Formats: sequence, structure tokens, C-alpha cells
Amino acid sequence: MSDQRLAAGVDLGGTKIYSLVADSEGHVLGEDRRPTNAALGVDSVVERIVASVRAALEHADLEFADVEGLGISTPGPCDPARGLISEAPNLGWIDVPLVELVRKKVGIRTLLENDAAAAAYGEMRFGAARGKQHVLYVTLGTGIGGGIIIDGRIYRGASGAAGEVGHLVLEPDGALCNCGARGCLEALASGTAIAREAQKAIADGRSVTMAGIAGDRGVTGEIVLEAAERGDAVAEEIIRRAGRYLGLGLVGLLNTFNPEALILGGGLVGLGDLYLGPAFAAARECGFEQILNDVTMTTAELGGRSGALGAAALITDRQPA
Amino acid sequence: MSDQRLAAGVDLGGTKIYSLVADSEGHVLGEDRRPTNAALGVDSVVERIVASVRAALEHADLEFADVEGLGISTPGPCDPARGLISEAPNLGWIDVPLVELVRKKVGIRTLLENDAAAAAYGEMRFGAARGKQHVLYVTLGTGIGGGIIIDGRIYRGASGAAGEVGHLVLEPDGALCNCGARGCLEALASGTAIAREAQKAIADGRSVTMAGIAGDRGVTGEIVLEAAERGDAVAEEIIRRAGRYLGLGLVGLLNTFNPEALILGGGLVGLGDLYLGPAFAAARECGFEQILNDVTMTTAELGGRSGALGAAALITDRQPA
Repeated sequence: MSDQRLAAGVDLGGTKIYSLVADSEGHVLGEDRRPTNAALGVDSVVERIVASVRAALEHADLEFADVEGLGISTPGPCDPARGLISEAPNLGWIDVPLVELVRKKVGIRTLLENDAAAAAYGEMRFGAARGKQHVLYVTLGTGIGGGIIIDGRIYRGASGAAGEVGHLVLEPDGALCNCGARGCLEALASGTAIAREAQKAIADGRSVTMAGIAGDRGVTGEIVLEAAERGDAVAEEIIRRAGRYLGLGLVGLLNTFNPEALILGGGLVGLGDLYLGPAFAAARECGFEQILNDVTMTTAELGGRSGALGAAALITDRQPA
Repeated sequence: MSDQRLAAGVDLGGTKIYSLVADSEGHVLGEDRRPTNAALGVDSVVERIVASVRAALEHADLEFADVEGLGISTPGPCDPARGLISEAPNLGWIDVPLVELVRKKVGIRTLLENDAAAAAYGEMRFGAARGKQHVLYVTLGTGIGGGIIIDGRIYRGASGAAGEVGHLVLEPDGALCNCGARGCLEALASGTAIAREAQKAIADGRSVTMAGIAGDRGVTGEIVLEAAERGDAVAEEIIRRAGRYLGLGLVGLLNTFNPEALILGGGLVGLGDLYLGPAFAAARECGFEQILNDVTMTTAELGGRSGALGAAALITDRQPA
């Protein structure tokens, strides 16, 4: 047994709960994964979170009393100071006082943090941005979000909404974004954007390969990637174009923040060079030289663990919620 | 005489030096303005800065020993920690150790700060963002720059280059920017952008009014405004369009920072509603509701004094350089 200080971390997602127990150096001592089953309602999900953390603790021969607290990484806008999930569309939750509900059952300090911010913190403490003070983390999936670390601490802004980096406008007359604006980074470079463009190409008969792979299923980034890897030029161009837009969004973030590290995470990182190549190239082509010299631009190191590890580290670092 | 703590502040510009003495509440006790005469070289400008501050002090019956220090707001990239002006194109300076040169002559604590950051600090302490902790200040002139205040302190980034908000990309295939990229906010919404579009309109014979007002002089924002006020629809559209782009840039800044205040300063604010109306409208149309509810969006209150007052306040607030 480590004599270090310990904490539990949970990554609460729309489909699964991932829990771990880690020490203050980010070593994982135990973990657990199980479905969220969000449809069963808030109380049921709270029970599942508690059971998952208990299982992770048991794998390390620990109990709740052995850890300093529990940090929860949550999807969507939240209010860490009040321990509230403001809105979690993929859980169907609005204004759920998650911290209070969980703390009553576990009896230890509990906090929550937005998933992108928690992942940013995790990557700063234990991953690709280790030792840096000013870090941007951009999560690339169905949507595009961001976590901002300034002076080694999560920056939340006036009301916890900071980091909506998916909503930089890049094409004023571009595709409509979920947020209601046009041509946001998210509308041009996310998984949703890639799938939309692929769908259009299939409908227009421009990609027999993608049509064949997709069949009756919806088009996803993976399908577009598979088609590209089979030599489908249309699929390749869709991914490259999204990557180029991502890079132009990163230019704005770099020039504004002058960060020490810019970390890309989330499922779309799996698209690899076809997506990340044009992104990094655009950033290097258009960013300020001094700013480019200062920054380490790379992908996340902690993978699916970054949010839970970050949330646990907020406990052992005694960061304010 | 106030028994409050006092500091001197200087706004060093390409054409003029503005100095003041202020107390820690931002009350101005004395001031002085004189030409920079940058062509006479660094030593001469240093002499003029010292003479200008001495004159401002004399207006308040004070000497250098009566103030806690001297803060200098400087144009362009600088390194406050080392007291260096890295590059000031409008002074023709590169790597000038201004703090050391001035301090030797005045014998009191001296610091320098980038003008947009100093103005942001001034507006936060005494102006339109008084009492706020998270403040964005955007300066609109020939170029577009920014000052960022986080937790009540200037945020400089990894090497002091943070705040280059003029280089958010807004039109990937848009006009070429001074920075080498295309379609930056600065290339679409600055005084330079407005003048460029006006020049095009004159060359194409689309605006007899602007051609008449401009005559043999170069086109400036004021000329475009004057033409618009005389009913020239082309001039009006040029200003409105620049304002709209400004607003789309502000959307990205708002969604990323979730600030408590967003302050617009600089000469272009003089274009008034024709420019600011479309800017604020675009921001309100495209920003996130929660973020818009949090923010006060307005123009600077301290006008030409914001940089010098901010630099002086960095002294009385004992902020680190």
C-alpha cells in the first residue's frame, strides 16, 4: 500500500460510468466500468456511481474512509461551486444537485467538474501537459469543447461556462451549428460535421465506398475513416477539411491564450494524421511565431482516464470546487 | 494633498507621450502631453518620457520621491518581467530595455506593460469594468489587440504574447492579414480593413462621396464615417460589415472566456453605432445565453487615459511586473 494521499475519481458519461482510485501522483490502484443506464433516473444513476466507486476501491482493498474524497467529471455545463449539473442533455438532467446526492451516500468530500476541464487538469498533472501552468485542452467528439488551465488552476469564467471553444465562428455563412449560430468550429470540424458532410456525399452519389460501408446504419467518423483508408478520395477530403478548420480554430486559441501546451483529446483523435495533420499544419502556418515557439501541441496521453484522473487530482490537490 | 498612495503613469505612443500622476483611486492630480519624436532615437525618447512625467508631477506640486513608482504603457509586444520592449514598429524599436533606461533617471520603481493590457487594467480598476474580476478589453484601431484580466490580474500567457485577439480567423479565404494569415478579425474589422474596402470602392467608382472627401489624402475611418453620415450607402455598408465581423469575433471570445465584462476601446469606437451596433447585435445573436447574461458589454470609460491610469494602478496595487 502506498502511504500517499488517495482519492477516487469518476467519469460520468451518457452511456457509461468509469471509476478509479488513484494516488496524488496519478497511479491508478483500482478501477471499475459499468453502464450508466441513464433512463432509470437520477437516483438509480447515483446508486450506480456509488457502487462503481465502491468496486474500484475494493479492487485496491480500500474503503471510502481510506480516500480523501471523490471527484466526478460530468458532461455538459455544471456549477462546481454549488455541486450542480446544470444541464446534461445525454443524461436528460437539468439542475441535478449531484454532489449532495452522492456525498450523502459516501460520506467523504465530493466535488464535480465539467469533463473537458477535468480532463485538462488530468493532462496537466499526469499527462501530456505535465509541469505546464497555462494549458488548453480541446475535446473532439460529437461536439467540440474545451478546458482551460491558467496558472495551474481551472479557469471557469463568470459562471462556469468558460471553455466553449467549439463556438468560435470560422465561416460566418457556414453550416448551421447546434448553438444556433453559423459556421462555428463545432459545425465544421466535429464528428457531427464530418458525418453531415459524409451523409451529403452519399446522398449525392459521390461516395459509393461510404454508402457501402454505412449501409443502413448512420454515418459516423469511423465509417468515413474506414472509407478514406480504402482509398475513397471524397471521404479523405471530408476528414482533411474538418482538420483544416480545426487548425484555424486552434490559431485563434493560440493567439489569444499564448499557452504552454495545447492538448487534443476525445474520440476524433482516433482519426489520426488525416485529421490532425491538417489541423497542426494550419496552426503552424497561421499562428504567431513567438506563440508557436512557446507551445507544445500534442494529443492527450491519458486517453479515457483523463477526466477521472483529473477529478481525483482536484481532491488530492485540495483545489476549491 | 491627498494622503493616498500615488503613482505616475505614462502612455508611450508612436506620436505622443501622455503622462499623469494619480492616486490609488484613479484620481488624476497632474498630467502632461508632448510629442514622442521617435525619430530622434531611444535616448531622446527616454529623456522626453522623464521630462513629461516631471511636468505632470510639477502640476501637482510633487517630485519623483513623492510617488511609489512609474508605470509605462507601451505599444506592441513587450516583456514586463524583463522590462523590455520586444518590438515597437511605430517607434522603430527592437529589444529596448526601457525600464532600466528610465529607472536610472527617475530613481523610483519602474515597470512597463503592453498598452492593451494596461488599458484593460485601468478599465477594471477605475472605468467601465470596475469591480469585475474577469475582463476582456479589445482595442480597435489600425490594428486590433486585446488585454485579458483573469481573477483581477493581467493574464500574459507563456511569454507575454497573450491577447492577440485580432488574429482569430473569421474567413479562411478572406483578406490577407498583416500577420500572414487570411481573414483574421483584424483583416476584416480594423481601421486598416475599413480603409482598404473604402479604397477599393473609390477605385471602382462606387463612392463619389468618399472620393470627394478623401481627395488626394489617404482614406481613413473618419473619412468613411463622414461619407456615411452624408448618406453614402457604400460607406455605411463598409462600416456595418466591419462591425458585424467584430461581433462575430467577440462571440468566440465570449464563449471561450465567459467574462464578466467585455470593454471596447481605441479610436474606432468613435465610429459609433454604425460600427458598434452590428458588433453588439452579432454578439447577442450568436453568443450563449448564459454567457450573455453574465457579461457587461460596453465601451471604455477612461478614453485616452486608460493605459496610463492602468500602468499607474499596477504600481499602487503592487502588481508584479
